Amino acid sequence: MLVTKHQNTIDAAVKANHARTFYSHYPEHPKAYGEEAHAKGVQSYQQLLNKPFRQLLQTGETGWVGEEVSPYTQEVLGVTYPIFAIDDLIKKATAAGQQWGHTDVRERAAVLTETLERIKDYFFDIANATMHTTGQSFMMSFQASGPHANDRALEAIATGYHELQRYPSELEWEKPMGKTTIRLKKTFKAIPKGIGVVIGCSTFPVWNTLPGVYADLITGNPVIIKPHPRAILPIAIAVGAIQQVLQENGYDPHLCQLAADSSDNLIAKKLAEHPDVQLIDYTGSSAFGNYVESLPGKTVFTEKAGVNSVLLDSVKDLDAVIQNLAFSVSLYSGQMCTAPQNFFIPETGISTAAGHVSFNEVVQRFKDAVVALVTNPKMGPGTLGALQNEATAARVQEAQQLGGKVVLASTAVNNEEFSNARVMAPAILEVTSADNNIYEKELFGPVVLVIKTKDTAHTIQLAKQMARKHGAITCAAYTTDNATKEMIADEMNSVFTPVSFNLTGYIWVNQHAAFSDFHVSGGNPAGNASFTNQEFIIKRFVWVGNRELME
Amino acid sequence: MLVTKHQNTIDAAVKANHARTFYSHYPEHPKAYGEEAHAKGVQSYQQLLNKPFRQLLQTGETGWVGEEVSPYTQEVLGVTYPIFAIDDLIKKATAAGQQWGHTDVRERAAVLTETLERIKDYFFDIANATMHTTGQSFMMSFQASGPHANDRALEAIATGYHELQRYPSELEWEKPMGKTTIRLKKTFKAIPKGIGVVIGCSTFPVWNTLPGVYADLITGNPVIIKPHPRAILPIAIAVGAIQQVLQENGYDPHLCQLAADSSDNLIAKKLAEHPDVQLIDYTGSSAFGNYVESLPGKTVFTEKAGVNSVLLDSVKDLDAVIQNLAFSVSLYSGQMCTAPQNFFIPETGISTAAGHVSFNEVVQRFKDAVVALVTNPKMGPGTLGALQNEATAARVQEAQQLGGKVVLASTAVNNEEFSNARVMAPAILEVTSADNNIYEKELFGPVVLVIKTKDTAHTIQLAKQMARKHGAITCAAYTTDNATKEMIADEMNSVFTPVSFNLTGYIWVNQHAAFSDFHVSGGNPAGNASFTNQEFIIKRFVWVGNRELME
Repeated sequence: MLVTKHQNTIDAAVKANHARTFYSHYPEHPKAYGEEAHAKGVQSYQQLLNKPFRQLLQTGETGWVGEEVSPYTQEVLGVTYPIFAIDDLIKKATAAGQQWGHTDVRERAAVLTETLERIKDYFFDIANATMHTTGQSFMMSFQASGPHANDRALEAIATGYHELQRYPSELEWEKPMGKTTIRLKKTFKAIPKGIGVVIGCSTFPVWNTLPGVYADLITGNPVIIKPHPRAILPIAIAVGAIQQVLQENGYDPHLCQLAADSSDNLIAKKLAEHPDVQLIDYTGSSAFGNYVESLPGKTVFTEKAGVNSVLLDSVKDLDAVIQNLAFSVSLYSGQMCTAPQNFFIPETGISTAAGHVSFNEVVQRFKDAVVALVTNPKMGPGTLGALQNEATAARVQEAQQLGGKVVLASTAVNNEEFSNARVMAPAILEVTSADNNIYEKELFGPVVLVIKTKDTAHTIQLAKQMARKHGAITCAAYTTDNATKEMIADEMNSVFTPVSFNLTGYIWVNQHAAFSDFHVSGGNPAGNASFTNQEFIIKRFVWVGNRELME
Repeated sequence: MLVTKHQNTIDAAVKANHARTFYSHYPEHPKAYGEEAHAKGVQSYQQLLNKPFRQLLQTGETGWVGEEVSPYTQEVLGVTYPIFAIDDLIKKATAAGQQWGHTDVRERAAVLTETLERIKDYFFDIANATMHTTGQSFMMSFQASGPHANDRALEAIATGYHELQRYPSELEWEKPMGKTTIRLKKTFKAIPKGIGVVIGCSTFPVWNTLPGVYADLITGNPVIIKPHPRAILPIAIAVGAIQQVLQENGYDPHLCQLAADSSDNLIAKKLAEHPDVQLIDYTGSSAFGNYVESLPGKTVFTEKAGVNSVLLDSVKDLDAVIQNLAFSVSLYSGQMCTAPQNFFIPETGISTAAGHVSFNEVVQRFKDAVVALVTNPKMGPGTLGALQNEATAARVQEAQQLGGKVVLASTAVNNEEFSNARVMAPAILEVTSADNNIYEKELFGPVVLVIKTKDTAHTIQLAKQMARKHGAITCAAYTTDNATKEMIADEMNSVFTPVSFNLTGYIWVNQHAAFSDFHVSGGNPAGNASFTNQEFIIKRFVWVGNRELME
């Protein structure tokens, strides 16, 4: 029944995955979900506060934890989550995996698509929960944790659906041998690798979690989600929805378990090192990511820190470029893994359709654009959101003491709706190419470095070296010269970094679209995995072929 | 031109790869290559002996080495090979990779298919070289190092050809945004990871080497082949053919370099650890395989040791089964990674169409069948071949002292053509299920263990445990009961081991057919890779997508 219901959706997603033209199953505009959805979502969210979270179908908890604080109000959310013994989680995952691993992939895909439809009913609850745990603006919270995350999950379902049906499940193999013929019946099975653990981050608790969850599930593996202790609620709501659908359709809700923890008793390592855990998805710091990658015998997918570059060579319309970049660096205060950090500009300045512009003028106009954006009461707070973590605010202050020339000091910005919101405008620091001690690391948060280079060749050399040594998820480049464009593409691609050229208007380097853009290439130190290429799926199962002599 | 010449071959191979029905591009019977080919091959081979090998297009050698000894004659081959400084090999690979990495995959596929056609011209030279380095019989030498290896290589080419064209190389992406539309030109490129090193083994120097070589090359990576110092000649001839074709078609022959070494100065670790080496294929011992797998930042494909089981439950025709198994254990004296070692038989015996047969009678009849085969002057020597390594002969003697009951002592077997050949018939040892200190390891070579179990459930439990702990590449099972068959398949597949059921006649568990059977599942300790699933190909490159705003 569910297969019939969702077949068109799945077929369209498989097709989109291959065509990579624009495709979205879940509209990204809140208004597409009805006029009252927003207000209702606020209400539902508020009803969750200051009480135990009861939407999970997991029992046998050993206690309750909860330490989330809203970056907008600085108040504790007061939601508590059940915690479970590691062995209990593993035992239930193992049991749930038995039936699921033998379930036909078409059925799995349909059931999982139904879970996404159910999550959709909670998009606005999740949006409010995301806002008050991550500090994202409402619009980003809605889009990233709602339709965009669901589209990424559907992409994983579709890729699995395609890959698991790549070979015939059964066939007759006939080998002519002179006068006789050998006939074998062959069967090919995609055997799930085992229990998956998905370790979430505090800034994108749903968007960075669902792809791994659905990749595990579509390939027949049970999954345990270990969220960041400061950003549990958004994914807890999603897990509740998934468990409801599983149970309603006769599947064990423990196929997808929430394993909350608290900062004084973290369980990520215990889960990752458990011998029955075969698959690990991780988003977060490079230190922990490198540790997970080093665990022997595990199949690991990581997204870690990186340093994204902007290469300015030549432009048509400098104002359009500057405005686009000012938005990119301000969006969620630089807390996106796709946000640009290092701006490389030749000391001789850049050419524009309106004539040559000096280095200093480019920097000045960039600064002016950032100031205009963040001080605009309509645009500023909604673009900046709030800083998820107090440590990020401290890091901005430290960055301004590193020795660069402070072009624009970071300032607090007032949010009219939330007067206690932790909001800081980006700092802009100017450094020389010799200041690699400053720019050769990720300065997570609202910090932009402008690096003066000799020329564009020098720019490329530095940006390439950064990506190779420290990783990069995005790269924005501006050039009107075709040969330069090719050179930038070749050099940055050679260190497995994608390049976005000449973006202006309503499209930003920070955005990666499901069904079209691969998110993280997997080839440089910013991470070893990519949403959603085939590797993200096929490493989660093993093809095994049986043969039988036919009489 | 080459694209036109080989397009049909490549298209057929891609199709075969997906259909997995019987397919072979290179006929496996020597007679298909003309009546004179065999005699000519012997001549060509003999002309190579006792001199430097001059067919490579590599220069700048720092010396010459060679220590191959024929297991048939015990004489040194006297062929020497040029050796090169590691940095020289790396520098030339890097230079060669520049152009190749930017070459269209259709062109790459055609050039590589042409190299296979050229290798075909040397099939008989390679067969003789294989015989006199590995100890394989002529027929196995011909098939394994000739048509079967070429088919596996073509399989890798075809898989790469398909995977690298999976996404459009360029497309327009249009996102409707209310009144406006965002239009991006997107390009997708498969960027090669870097230099590949393929480390060969002494028993299958071509068959186990070519898949990795062609997987590296089709995905745009240069490759360095490090053969086993005792089995260089077969692959050296192939590399010479590859280099000729590359040069004739305007490509750098250093795309595929031979890096011979000698046992007193092994270079595998130096190559594997070189920072510019990104890809490593390895066939050989588990100890070295585990070391290669542990190298941080490398993409590694291994085939290591395993212990293959035979599960005897019930049969129709015991004689047919016993004969099939006697051949399987005798073929190349158990030196195939697919050869069965552990025979699990219930203490109560097994049922057959002709009535119940006791444990002791099954063992006796198996012993008789082995003796009849190996003492048959027409069949014996040609089936057994010779022991590649003197250590294997010593291991057989040691195995007989381990404490098992010696059902059949290993004996030397006379080869009429080569009186000095190192030929030993299989030893058969009977042990109990408690003797796991004896059967829980690979006893590489002509040693068969018969293990008495309580019943088939016990058999399955032990065989599964063996595969999980020590790895398995094959499993042969005999049962006439459907429920038992399903149970065996489920349990062995759950530890990522394929099962061959009820093989009799001219098909043996040792054989894995290109384009249909995956060789090694990659899921248990016998290896982390599989010929040729998608993972074997797609881990060698990275998808990178560039975007550009369209005006």
